[in-house]
Amino acid sequence: MKQSALFTKTRKEAPTDEVAENAKLLIRAGYIHKEMAGVYSFLPLGVRVMNNIAKIIREEMNALGGVELHLTALQDREVWEKSGRWSDEVVDNWFKTKLKSGTEVGLGFTQEEPLTRILSEYINSYKDLPKYVYQIQTKFRNEARAKSGILRGREFLMKDLYSFSRTDKEHEDFYERSKTAYTNVFTRAGIGEKTYLTYASGGTFSKYSHEFQTLTSAGEDIIHICDVCHVAVNEEISKDVSSCPVCSGALSRTEKAVEVGNIFSLGTKYASVLGLSYTGEDGEKKPVVMGSYGIGLGRLMGTIVEVFADEKGIVWPESVAPFRVHLISIVGANGEVVKKEADALYETLTQKGIEVLYDDRDLRPGEKFADSDLIGVPTRVVISEKTIAQGKLEVKDRKTGTVSMLSQSELFQDLQ
Amino acid sequence: MKQSALFTKTRKEAPTDEVAENAKLLIRAGYIHKEMAGVYSFLPLGVRVMNNIAKIIREEMNALGGVELHLTALQDREVWEKSGRWSDEVVDNWFKTKLKSGTEVGLGFTQEEPLTRILSEYINSYKDLPKYVYQIQTKFRNEARAKSGILRGREFLMKDLYSFSRTDKEHEDFYERSKTAYTNVFTRAGIGEKTYLTYASGGTFSKYSHEFQTLTSAGEDIIHICDVCHVAVNEEISKDVSSCPVCSGALSRTEKAVEVGNIFSLGTKYASVLGLSYTGEDGEKKPVVMGSYGIGLGRLMGTIVEVFADEKGIVWPESVAPFRVHLISIVGANGEVVKKEADALYETLTQKGIEVLYDDRDLRPGEKFADSDLIGVPTRVVISEKTIAQGKLEVKDRKTGTVSMLSQSELFQDLQ
Repeated sequence: MKQSALFTKTRKEAPTDEVAENAKLLIRAGYIHKEMAGVYSFLPLGVRVMNNIAKIIREEMNALGGVELHLTALQDREVWEKSGRWSDEVVDNWFKTKLKSGTEVGLGFTQEEPLTRILSEYINSYKDLPKYVYQIQTKFRNEARAKSGILRGREFLMKDLYSFSRTDKEHEDFYERSKTAYTNVFTRAGIGEKTYLTYASGGTFSKYSHEFQTLTSAGEDIIHICDVCHVAVNEEISKDVSSCPVCSGALSRTEKAVEVGNIFSLGTKYASVLGLSYTGEDGEKKPVVMGSYGIGLGRLMGTIVEVFADEKGIVWPESVAPFRVHLISIVGANGEVVKKEADALYETLTQKGIEVLYDDRDLRPGEKFADSDLIGVPTRVVISEKTIAQGKLEVKDRKTGTVSMLSQSELFQDLQ
Repeated sequence: MKQSALFTKTRKEAPTDEVAENAKLLIRAGYIHKEMAGVYSFLPLGVRVMNNIAKIIREEMNALGGVELHLTALQDREVWEKSGRWSDEVVDNWFKTKLKSGTEVGLGFTQEEPLTRILSEYINSYKDLPKYVYQIQTKFRNEARAKSGILRGREFLMKDLYSFSRTDKEHEDFYERSKTAYTNVFTRAGIGEKTYLTYASGGTFSKYSHEFQTLTSAGEDIIHICDVCHVAVNEEISKDVSSCPVCSGALSRTEKAVEVGNIFSLGTKYASVLGLSYTGEDGEKKPVVMGSYGIGLGRLMGTIVEVFADEKGIVWPESVAPFRVHLISIVGANGEVVKKEADALYETLTQKGIEVLYDDRDLRPGEKFADSDLIGVPTRVVISEKTIAQGKLEVKDRKTGTVSMLSQSELFQDLQ
C-alpha cells in the first residue's frame, strides 16, 4: 500500500486524557482512534494487525477441531436469568438497553448462556459429542474505570471457544490440548518467551483455572514465577499455592503481567441449568461437561506493543506487523531516478507476495524515518541517490537497529 | 468438512413465531439461530455464506480504492448532538445504554458522525483528498417490528463505505463508479438479473439517491420498472417521477422488491457541522463533500434465499454457497467399499481446493437427500454400491435438478 493512500498520519501527541502507553503509541502512529474512555476504533493499520492476530488464532482453533460461528451482541434476558447472571448485583459490568416494547436486553460480555441454549437444541446423544465451537466477536463490558488503553476496553473483539464434552476425562484431554494451542498462539504472535501458563483460582468444578500471563510493567496482575518450569501462580491464590504446582520448587520471582488468555473448566454448571444433556450409551441422561477459552484480540495487540516498544515507537514481530517492509524513497535533486527505482522495487516486492508500505510522500527524510520508527514495520528499506550510486539498498532492522547495505537479491533472501 | 463435525442438524419445523420464509429455511437448515425477534446468530454454515459475501464485497470495495477500518458500536453522544441526530425524536430506532458514570451512549445504527470526526483529525489539505473508507461492522437498529427474518434485523452486519471528495464533480465521478461496483457485487452474488438500480428520494444535496432493489415477493418496497434500461423508480417518488429517468419511456411494471444496497450523496452536511474541511489550492478553506454507500450482508443473504429457494429448500449460487459440493455416501450391505471410495473422493476434492460438505453420517438415503436439498449446496455427488458398480458418480445439480452419471475426471472438469 502506498502511504499516500492511507488517510492517517502520525501525530506528535496522543490525546491528553490518554494514560496507557499502548494506546498513546497506537494513536500517535495511526492504528487506533479513541472514541471515549475504553472505546477505540481500529484504523486501517490497526485492522491489518488485528487481521493477522485473528488469522493466527483461527488457524490454531481450527487445528484444535473448533468450528466457527457468530453469536449476537444483544442478549435475551430469559436465558441469563436461568443461570443467575442477569442481575446487576451478580454481574456488575452489564450494559443493558431496551427494545421498543420496553423489554430489557443485555449486551453480551461473554456467551456461555446463549451458546448452551443453542447446543441444547441440537445435542441429544453421546454420538453428537464432543463439540468445540468458537467465534471472534465483539464483547461489551461496562468497566467502572478504563485506563489501560486497549488492554481493557468497554467494547472489544474476543475469541471465545467453548468445549462440550461427555465426561470429565474427555473434557480434561481437550483442556490439556487447548494449553498447547494457546501456547502456539502466543509463540506465533512473538510473545512466547514472555508468556507464562499461570495457575489461577478455579470454580466449583476445578481446583484451578489457567491464565496466560505476559510480563510487562503495564500489567494489572501480579504473578509468582517458577523459572525452572516456565509456569507461574497468580497472586490471588498465592496464599494457598506457595510453591510451583509442577515441580513443587520455590517460586523465584514476582512480576507484573497482563492476562492475554484464559481457560476455564465450567463442569456441568451451565448445562444443568439450561437443559443441555445427552443420552449416554447406557441410555442414561447426563449433563454436558463444558469449558471456556478466551483471548482478547485487542488486549493481545496492546500487550505486544507494551512488550516490544522502545523510545522511538512500536516494534512489531513479523507475524502480526501490518506490513513486512516499509519502503522509503528519499527524493532529492535527481528525483525521477529515485522514484523510478522505488516504484519498481515496490512492484517487485508486491508481486512476490511481500506486504509493503511504500512511503511515496513528499516529506523530508527525517520525518519519514521518524514515522517509520513510530509505526514499527520490521524491515525498513531506503532508496536514495546515494544507495543507487552504490548499487545497493539501505536495509534497517527495526528491532535491532542494524543497518546493512544489501543488493536486491540479498534483500529478497532476507525476507524469505 | 465432514457433516458429523457440524453440531447443527436440520429441523422439520422452524420456531412457531417465525413468519419470514428466509429465516424459516435458514433456521431449518442450520444456518442461523433466532435469539429473539430480529436478532439472529449465525451458525457454522451461516458464517461460511457470510464470509463468501464479505469476500465479494471487500474485493469490489478495494478495487474502488476503499481502505478498510473498524469503528466501534458504542457511540459518543456529543458528536451526534452536533449533527442533530442524537434525539429519539429525530432518530426513532436508537438503542441507548449508560456508562457506570451515568453518561448515556448509543449503539451505532450508521457511522457518518464518528467517521467524519476521525477524518477531521487527519484531513488538512486538498492533497489529502479524495479518500474512500469502509468497514464491515455490526449495526444496531431498534426496529418497532422485526418480522422479515434476516432481511431487517435489530442487529446486523453491514458494509458501509464513505467517500470524502474535494468537489461535487469529484464526488459524482466516484458515485458513478460506485454504481458499477455495486452492480458487480450483486452480479457476483447471483442476483444481478433480478436487481434494479432504483431512483429514490435524495436529500438536501441531490435530487435522487439510488437503491439496488431485488425482485421478490418478500420485499417491503414497491418499484416501477423500465425494462428497456433495467432501472426502476421507488414508489415513494413515483408521483414526481412517472417515467424512466434514463430513457423517459414508460415504466412498464410494478413489483415488490428488497433494497439490497443504497448509495447516497451527503453533500457537505456532516462535514460542515463536524468541522471536516480542507484548504484548497487557492488557499481557501472548504467543507468536504461526502457520500455513503451501504450493503447489509444478512439482508443480501436472506434475499438470495428468498429469490432462489424452491419447495425442497435453499438453492445457493456457487459464489456464496457454504460448500461447492455436497458429497453423500450411501452405505449399504457392502459398506466398507463405499466408505473407502467416498473418503478418497473427499480427500481428492479437498486437495484440489474444492470445498466439500461430506455427509458421512449413518442415516437413511432419503434423510440424507432431503437434508441436502434443504441445505442447498450447488452440486450433490452420491457414491453408492450402484454407482461404484457402474464406475461412475451420480451428480445432481441442485438448481435444475438434472442428474448425470459422470466419471471422476468429468466431475472435476464440471467443477472448474
